[in-house]
Amino acid sequence: MKMVQKLINNIVKTDAPIVVGLDPTLKFVPQYIQKACFEEYGETLKGAAEAIWQFNKGIIDATYDLIPAVKPQIAMYEQFGVEGVEVFKRTVEYCQSKGLIVIGDIKRGDIGSTSTAYAVGHLGIVKVGSKTYAPFSEDYATVNPYLGTDGVKPFVDVCNEADKGIFVLVKTSNPSSGEFQDRIIDGKPLYEHVADKVNEWGAMSMDGEYSNVGAVVGATYPEQGKILREKMSKTFILVPGYGAQGGKGADLVHFFNKDGLGAIINSSRGIIAAYQNEKYAKFSEQEFADASRAAVLDMKEDIKSAFN
Amino acid sequence: MKMVQKLINNIVKTDAPIVVGLDPTLKFVPQYIQKACFEEYGETLKGAAEAIWQFNKGIIDATYDLIPAVKPQIAMYEQFGVEGVEVFKRTVEYCQSKGLIVIGDIKRGDIGSTSTAYAVGHLGIVKVGSKTYAPFSEDYATVNPYLGTDGVKPFVDVCNEADKGIFVLVKTSNPSSGEFQDRIIDGKPLYEHVADKVNEWGAMSMDGEYSNVGAVVGATYPEQGKILREKMSKTFILVPGYGAQGGKGADLVHFFNKDGLGAIINSSRGIIAAYQNEKYAKFSEQEFADASRAAVLDMKEDIKSAFN
Repeated sequence: MKMVQKLINNIVKTDAPIVVGLDPTLKFVPQYIQKACFEEYGETLKGAAEAIWQFNKGIIDATYDLIPAVKPQIAMYEQFGVEGVEVFKRTVEYCQSKGLIVIGDIKRGDIGSTSTAYAVGHLGIVKVGSKTYAPFSEDYATVNPYLGTDGVKPFVDVCNEADKGIFVLVKTSNPSSGEFQDRIIDGKPLYEHVADKVNEWGAMSMDGEYSNVGAVVGATYPEQGKILREKMSKTFILVPGYGAQGGKGADLVHFFNKDGLGAIINSSRGIIAAYQNEKYAKFSEQEFADASRAAVLDMKEDIKSAFN
Repeated sequence: MKMVQKLINNIVKTDAPIVVGLDPTLKFVPQYIQKACFEEYGETLKGAAEAIWQFNKGIIDATYDLIPAVKPQIAMYEQFGVEGVEVFKRTVEYCQSKGLIVIGDIKRGDIGSTSTAYAVGHLGIVKVGSKTYAPFSEDYATVNPYLGTDGVKPFVDVCNEADKGIFVLVKTSNPSSGEFQDRIIDGKPLYEHVADKVNEWGAMSMDGEYSNVGAVVGATYPEQGKILREKMSKTFILVPGYGAQGGKGADLVHFFNKDGLGAIINSSRGIIAAYQNEKYAKFSEQEFADASRAAVLDMKEDIKSAFN
């Protein structure tokens, strides 16, 4: 089965087009977890990484039955060096063991054999002598399009070989995304030109109604989302920017196709740091995972209500 | 001392505006090294990573006195998973112990706290309890501009805090770089708009004549290089695409300012896999490092002769 079909199956099964962003920083991790890990491993990169692992595991255990997918942001792991990267890998594996689709938010992009190396490392299989290994083994990866087809095609090839998927950055959720992405070229913004290419790349990896090549379009730009939804009708859209970044359920309706599919909405801080939010003040620090579960249920409700 | 001044000092000392790209793949690593590492560690990711480390060390030991800087391409290490990333870190540290400036070719780019996490992990200092660590500790990193100022500014802030530098992708060396980068916006190509922003970002981190914020412009586009050189007069330009990708010494003159500075030319395969090139056939596999040294000397000569 192709990756986009696996994603759709998980969305249908959980009745939730949402993804939890596993973007841990130490300030989100409860003090009692940090303290225990620092006692065991010292105030070291290893200690920080283990604290993040304990935090992730708590959230995954409390939410995996409600959601189709998670999106670990690798930057939050790389900031703790090799030890952090090891916990990224452990998190990917643990999530997959719980039946979740893992979207590696890695935003890689290079050219030729270098893009192939990223694709192989994160989605594919690398050869070592007579053996093969899947080094990080995410299900999806996010990809930056600035270098053009030379940068993206190697990822598409690996998707086809290994039954994996990618989401290509089209219109990002941040305030300055317009500096380049909104500039007008031949009568339409750059992000629409990127969308045209996503359609081209997507045609190389179709599975039924949808492609394994998806797109990233920020929840903070609902008007652009509507245009891009129509333009990329066979593309699954990963939508960041819901919640903490300001996107609301009502803004999201137009990111979906008429079949109710075609989009998956990410929330990171809003879920994983819910216990620090006034709205979930009834949960103690020790109940951070229960707060995350409550926040997932609220998010599902918010998105559902937008369709009514 | 600021990073760009350290880079200039190294260039002046070695009289060589060049950088060796440490982009190892197993097909470049001599069989006898692979064999020894596989015997010690098995045909594992660890075995592959150690083979790459031995290969790198040989090349560094044979060339460090001739060159100011190296540019390890992190994709080539990530493809071997956590074990590969550990060797990336070891390579950075070893190169710095030899007095080399290390340009981490990581092409990262995200937004806000995520870009800060990348910047901290690769160039800065991360806090764990009461302790601080420099996780990967490169001197420079390459950065992708597609997300705009939100993506780049966190790197500039870390550069200023930690006396480090970045090179922002402006016009990349690959054939399809024109798909987006060459598109005309308000009468000039996108890469010139990115160059305008590089000037803005660069003004936030000046050191004398040059900024710690540099740019990447491919050797394969000498005409664009000439325009971008004039446009970004205070910007150091990292120039990939020399050698294996087709760029020649004579194409490079216009990437430099009249002071003879302002550019640094990268060669990867042409140096590290020189022993596999017919031109250096007199070197055996065991002499791969000597072949790399000969290729560095030839590259220096080729670039020098272009100025006469």
